[in-house]
Amino acid sequence: MGFNVTQKLIQSHLVSGEMVPGEEIGLKIDQTLTQDATGTLVMLELEAMGLERAKTEVSAQYVDHNLIQEDNKNPDDHLFLYSATRRFGLYHSRPGNGVSHPVHMQYLAKPGKTLLGSDSHTCANGCMGMLAMGAGGVDVALAIAGEPFYVKMPKVWGIKLTGELPDWVSAKDVILELLRRYDVKGGVGKVIEYYGPGLENLSAMDRHVIANMGAELGATGTVFPSDQEVKSYLKAQGREDDWIELIADKDATYDIDEEINLSELEPLIAKPSSPGNVVPVREIAGTSIYQSYVGSSANPGYRDFAIAAEIVKGRRVHDGVSFDINPTSRHMLTDLVKESHIASLIQAGARMHQAGCNGCIGMGQAPATGKNSLRTTPRNFPGRSGTKEDSVYLCSPETAAASALTGQITDPRTMDFSYPKVKEMKNPTVDKNVLDHPLPYEEAKNVTLEKGPNIASIPAMDELPDELEVPVLLKMSDNISTDEILAGGARVLPYRSNLPEISKFTFEIVDDTYYSRAKKTVDHGGHAIVGGYNYGQGSSREHAALAPRYLGLKIALVKDFARIHWQNLVNFGVLPLTFVHEKDYEKIEQGDTLVVSDLRNKVKAGKNFTLDVKGKDISIEVMHVLSERQKDIMLQGGIINWVKNQKK
Amino acid sequence: MGFNVTQKLIQSHLVSGEMVPGEEIGLKIDQTLTQDATGTLVMLELEAMGLERAKTEVSAQYVDHNLIQEDNKNPDDHLFLYSATRRFGLYHSRPGNGVSHPVHMQYLAKPGKTLLGSDSHTCANGCMGMLAMGAGGVDVALAIAGEPFYVKMPKVWGIKLTGELPDWVSAKDVILELLRRYDVKGGVGKVIEYYGPGLENLSAMDRHVIANMGAELGATGTVFPSDQEVKSYLKAQGREDDWIELIADKDATYDIDEEINLSELEPLIAKPSSPGNVVPVREIAGTSIYQSYVGSSANPGYRDFAIAAEIVKGRRVHDGVSFDINPTSRHMLTDLVKESHIASLIQAGARMHQAGCNGCIGMGQAPATGKNSLRTTPRNFPGRSGTKEDSVYLCSPETAAASALTGQITDPRTMDFSYPKVKEMKNPTVDKNVLDHPLPYEEAKNVTLEKGPNIASIPAMDELPDELEVPVLLKMSDNISTDEILAGGARVLPYRSNLPEISKFTFEIVDDTYYSRAKKTVDHGGHAIVGGYNYGQGSSREHAALAPRYLGLKIALVKDFARIHWQNLVNFGVLPLTFVHEKDYEKIEQGDTLVVSDLRNKVKAGKNFTLDVKGKDISIEVMHVLSERQKDIMLQGGIINWVKNQKK
Repeated sequence: MGFNVTQKLIQSHLVSGEMVPGEEIGLKIDQTLTQDATGTLVMLELEAMGLERAKTEVSAQYVDHNLIQEDNKNPDDHLFLYSATRRFGLYHSRPGNGVSHPVHMQYLAKPGKTLLGSDSHTCANGCMGMLAMGAGGVDVALAIAGEPFYVKMPKVWGIKLTGELPDWVSAKDVILELLRRYDVKGGVGKVIEYYGPGLENLSAMDRHVIANMGAELGATGTVFPSDQEVKSYLKAQGREDDWIELIADKDATYDIDEEINLSELEPLIAKPSSPGNVVPVREIAGTSIYQSYVGSSANPGYRDFAIAAEIVKGRRVHDGVSFDINPTSRHMLTDLVKESHIASLIQAGARMHQAGCNGCIGMGQAPATGKNSLRTTPRNFPGRSGTKEDSVYLCSPETAAASALTGQITDPRTMDFSYPKVKEMKNPTVDKNVLDHPLPYEEAKNVTLEKGPNIASIPAMDELPDELEVPVLLKMSDNISTDEILAGGARVLPYRSNLPEISKFTFEIVDDTYYSRAKKTVDHGGHAIVGGYNYGQGSSREHAALAPRYLGLKIALVKDFARIHWQNLVNFGVLPLTFVHEKDYEKIEQGDTLVVSDLRNKVKAGKNFTLDVKGKDISIEVMHVLSERQKDIMLQGGIINWVKNQKK
Repeated sequence: MGFNVTQKLIQSHLVSGEMVPGEEIGLKIDQTLTQDATGTLVMLELEAMGLERAKTEVSAQYVDHNLIQEDNKNPDDHLFLYSATRRFGLYHSRPGNGVSHPVHMQYLAKPGKTLLGSDSHTCANGCMGMLAMGAGGVDVALAIAGEPFYVKMPKVWGIKLTGELPDWVSAKDVILELLRRYDVKGGVGKVIEYYGPGLENLSAMDRHVIANMGAELGATGTVFPSDQEVKSYLKAQGREDDWIELIADKDATYDIDEEINLSELEPLIAKPSSPGNVVPVREIAGTSIYQSYVGSSANPGYRDFAIAAEIVKGRRVHDGVSFDINPTSRHMLTDLVKESHIASLIQAGARMHQAGCNGCIGMGQAPATGKNSLRTTPRNFPGRSGTKEDSVYLCSPETAAASALTGQITDPRTMDFSYPKVKEMKNPTVDKNVLDHPLPYEEAKNVTLEKGPNIASIPAMDELPDELEVPVLLKMSDNISTDEILAGGARVLPYRSNLPEISKFTFEIVDDTYYSRAKKTVDHGGHAIVGGYNYGQGSSREHAALAPRYLGLKIALVKDFARIHWQNLVNFGVLPLTFVHEKDYEKIEQGDTLVVSDLRNKVKAGKNFTLDVKGKDISIEVMHVLSERQKDIMLQGGIINWVKNQKK
């Protein structure tokens, strides 16, 4: 039986496991991508692992998220990242170069390769015939250190595209259509693979738009074939040699079958406050807007801006509408300037912003209270714009530009002029030296990491001790989220590169005495916490495991764990245990001391063992579900030690 | 005896007083300018005054300061300002249109007129043969309401310009030369008036550069003649009809005489952390830099960006240098785009930012810790960039661009290429409709002010009572600054449009129980505070008088006042008293109650009267120095009531 593109990509990178949906597989990672918001911790992890040099074919660090410099912290992070890329042999993309995904596509993406990125929209580069996946920071750090990436073998969701997009309808409407059909969990456990005759009329960048928002369906990845369209794209970039053909075998099949007839699509829009809340634009036309926003990783192409420019050219944005233009990259901006599109936008009343992620991740451009914001961005989760109770709609550049002119949500097909034709750039601006290339090792090995006052190395961590006697500092109820373990937001996140500082916020929402009590346990054997069901739900942030670990957390004993936080606890050497008998939860009180001896052998030997409550005649049967590899990680005190020891 | 230009401008607007340096004069104000950071309070003051419609010839509200929208507050302010300009009949310049001063110059400035602005760099429009002055918000509110502006008659400092600027030297170096000679207090009590043959080679925009930083010399204003150069400028803008000739009489004299030979100037730079700390660039050449920053009101011209673009064109910014370009206005950006200068900048490695004030007022673009930042901005006061212990240098665009290429402070004359010639735009982009024009009154009168949740009207204020019995809630020592009365910074300033909220921070640094104690006095006759010497020094912020007043402050009794805060107290109806016998300061304790009866007559009658300390056999002789007009304001409960009552 033949393979589809996804299967080919997986098979050619399979290091362990079998290609049976749901089974854990290990994949060789060829390329990595990090951005600054997640990258500083990745670089600190590489430092803690003692990495000499990146072992991937390509690893690139982009600075695109935290571009607003209100004090020293963000620029200090930028300089730290620059020094780290020089030390570890990474590509570096400086502030102003633009959003990671399209820049990576332009200069580094390569058909047939795997790409792992510490950004959820890493999947966008699936447009290039790659298996591109978002992951947690430490997973990417491990990949840079040469370790495989472990993931459950996905089902492959084959989507046959037929027909051709009508005027005023573009790639964004294709992915909105899929979200309309299947909502935000429709892609979980799947790779979305596009094929069929409809591909012929979708440029590589159109496919990027579609692949990007695979993330909003919860998909593991999105895959397009590497065909003539990809070849043309690479040729225009002067990288024809990087092209290989990668298409599905003729007899390939898919785990799930789907079809979209492009000719039947119309302009779509996701209403507040979920990307899955999609309706035709015409259904809500007439709703007044405060903001129209063009740009972001979800509509990053030259075409996306050029079409908006052609629509507003010689016209004037409606009074009171903030028409925000967010260029994607340095070279795309250069081309848009050269072709007069930027002039058209500015003269029509646009506000030009710096190239980067900006408002898409809540860094500026927040809408006014109670006002509607129309955006070409990928997400409209509540409050993500920065404004509480915001009202953000997601749409195509055509819909955004038409609505900017009228001051209300507008089906662009109702404009009283014909669909402007946008000519693709024949000779786009190309200069691979826009990226700082990896230093030769002989030079790199002497580079010192440049750490501003807010950047602190990750301290060394002990291996798992054999005897534990640890007080229970917190006993919590069900559904404790990572936001309660370690809050996000403007007060806390600026310390993302400073474990000693950020740890001061740990469990602050649950019990603001935790920090001072926990700190005292660090040199006295550490401590434990007890929780209920769904412990660690919510954001995947690694700090929620790393910070308590730094404060001496040895054991998290709960009824059950949220998946990603459980993984993070393992990675940072906190033993995640569950009750064999859930009613034992009642037997433990905050302040009790848990005792266990011969712990290392017990973890190694099997899954169940017993904890005693000191001074009370109580024993608690507990279990873990660690794999052999994870046991090894746990015994060594976490993944950083594990990588460090592997090198010995 | 003939008049110089300054004298002509003053004489033609003189409403009261005599033109004797040091004497208070009242001036009719033709035009006003407000920006968003100060403008929201001005608009709330207009509302509280019950203004029906602006009485000036031209009043314009610009949105250029708080452009970073991290949550609802700034965009809510923007919409409030838009609604207020529609209500009161003002011009409105939306976010993205750019910095107030050059936009005002382009579309509204008019030779022979007076301009008062709630921004210290309002003086920039002195380049147009105007008397342009910065002032406090309420002064501008009064001017909009048709009241004269009162100021001490300045000395006129005549600066004769001869010669012609050499290659690599530009207008910025002229004003830096004056700062080198006379430092930051050199212009206090003076208007700087330029004349002489050197003017011929300085464009209107060059003069804008020079006039702008008159503020850094502490000058009351800067005045250039309205000559052929101004005529050409207005002609290019399609506003030739707005031109009148305004030049000094042949026999005019100046109170102080000065000469600058332009031919002898060289590239200059102000070292950290004062604009007066000026040395030749060559003296500190070789110092490594982190940032090179082109733009701001101090170098806002087309030429300023074009020359930077020509210098870096086809070259590449030094690795690790953040080359930040801050466009001044929508139309200047349009022209720079059209003439390919923006393309040159981007390709060389620039970071393009939105048009506005941005980093110049600490809104983004802060430098990294311990790194040097080179800027064409007007100010380098410590910490103004947003980074503590920053190191900011001020220079010309030529020096900034050359240094961006080398990565170190560089005398541009040492570059290995010849000085690029910049062609001025023959037909600059002009579109007066870039501003929202005042609504006709019939429409305006029905406009409702749009107030987001963080915008609160200024409450009505009582007139001065006849009997006072007020507890002394605070007794303070010397040199209490307005920062101690009401802090600035990111925690407090977002509430600038919300008196009830911002008042919660009043005296927080001195005594954090003040707010709750003061609040209780509001409905029970209010309270007093006692202070030492130099009370109210520092920032001119009006909230430092308005917030305590809102909390019931009736009397401020101190050894002496800082001038501006004293004026603000008068404006907001807090009676500013000083001890006749300073040793009486010792007799009052915090918690004492001050009693006075027949207060209105006592204020009216004379300057000295007596306060009794209740329950103690103590009488304190106090005095005020209010003018007749100020007595009137005080009796009516402040300037807002005074204006309101005038209309009756």
